[in-house]
Amino acid sequence: MSPQNNAPLYLDDLSVGQRFTSTEHEIDEAQILEFARRFDPQPFHLDAAHARETLFGGLAASGWHTAAVTMRLIVGERAPFAGGVIGAGAEIAWPGPTRPGDVLRVVSEVLEITPSRSKPRGIVSLRSETLNQHGEVRQLMTSKLVVPRRQRHAADGLPELAAASRPARAC
Amino acid sequence: MSPQNNAPLYLDDLSVGQRFTSTEHEIDEAQILEFARRFDPQPFHLDAAHARETLFGGLAASGWHTAAVTMRLIVGERAPFAGGVIGAGAEIAWPGPTRPGDVLRVVSEVLEITPSRSKPRGIVSLRSETLNQHGEVRQLMTSKLVVPRRQRHAADGLPELAAASRPARAC
Repeated sequence: MSPQNNAPLYLDDLSVGQRFTSTEHEIDEAQILEFARRFDPQPFHLDAAHARETLFGGLAASGWHTAAVTMRLIVGERAPFAGGVIGAGAEIAWPGPTRPGDVLRVVSEVLEITPSRSKPRGIVSLRSETLNQHGEVRQLMTSKLVVPRRQRHAADGLPELAAASRPARAC
Repeated sequence: MSPQNNAPLYLDDLSVGQRFTSTEHEIDEAQILEFARRFDPQPFHLDAAHARETLFGGLAASGWHTAAVTMRLIVGERAPFAGGVIGAGAEIAWPGPTRPGDVLRVVSEVLEITPSRSKPRGIVSLRSETLNQHGEVRQLMTSKLVVPRRQRHAADGLPELAAASRPARAC
């Protein structure tokens, strides 16, 4: 994901409804097997013939592999957020498995911004759909990201007032 | 994770409160760097000196790396559940980062069992804590797993009655 002018985004720069689209990554059978051997060595992720006899009906990437590739696409060439993409947690669902040949991209949208009361940062709730080349959703994730505020010099104005104008929910 | 006698467990064999403990896996710096290079190439996962200047205060594994290792530990030598460990989704939180030298183990507990009304399977809600050698929680996850029912022959009794005795929530 890249912000328009490529400058990293602070909490102050984000707004609800803002959207980001990643570049693409093609998953092939070799990647699926390699990830599965290391982290999820189950037959439906390791053996196409066996996988056809299972619930998956064919070789499927581990959901955690789809999650890892999604993270890679969100981070992009350079993390879109100042301080990086730092997740405190996430809710994740896999409506259907990623298959060999799937070309994944991630479309993300800011759902909620919750500034901290005590610290110069906040939590951004980001909804990310991981889609394949057919537009099928392979992963749906809502993550809680820690994003810093822009540091202000005293001469810049009244950060206390700026803080007071934000929603009162603390994190 | 391994059930006691190593036989894979069907939905019928599970009960709320049932617990499983995995074997252990030690995370070292090389593993952290390798995962990060591939899936989460951010300075605090790639460069110990830089990481000390960040929110993490030192080299930290990607949360998705902790998630992938957790999956490896849950799957174990052989998946504890009949049909494998098949996740439809999960809620995940990282209260603190996994560090080089952390020895991880996973303690899981069955929270809820929801048989399908129409299919010979159900959804098991499993809460999994990933702990290091100091007992610090490095990941907290509640996952929804698809677990098949034991197939019954007609002569075995009345599966309809068995089904009726279960909670009525469908999935």
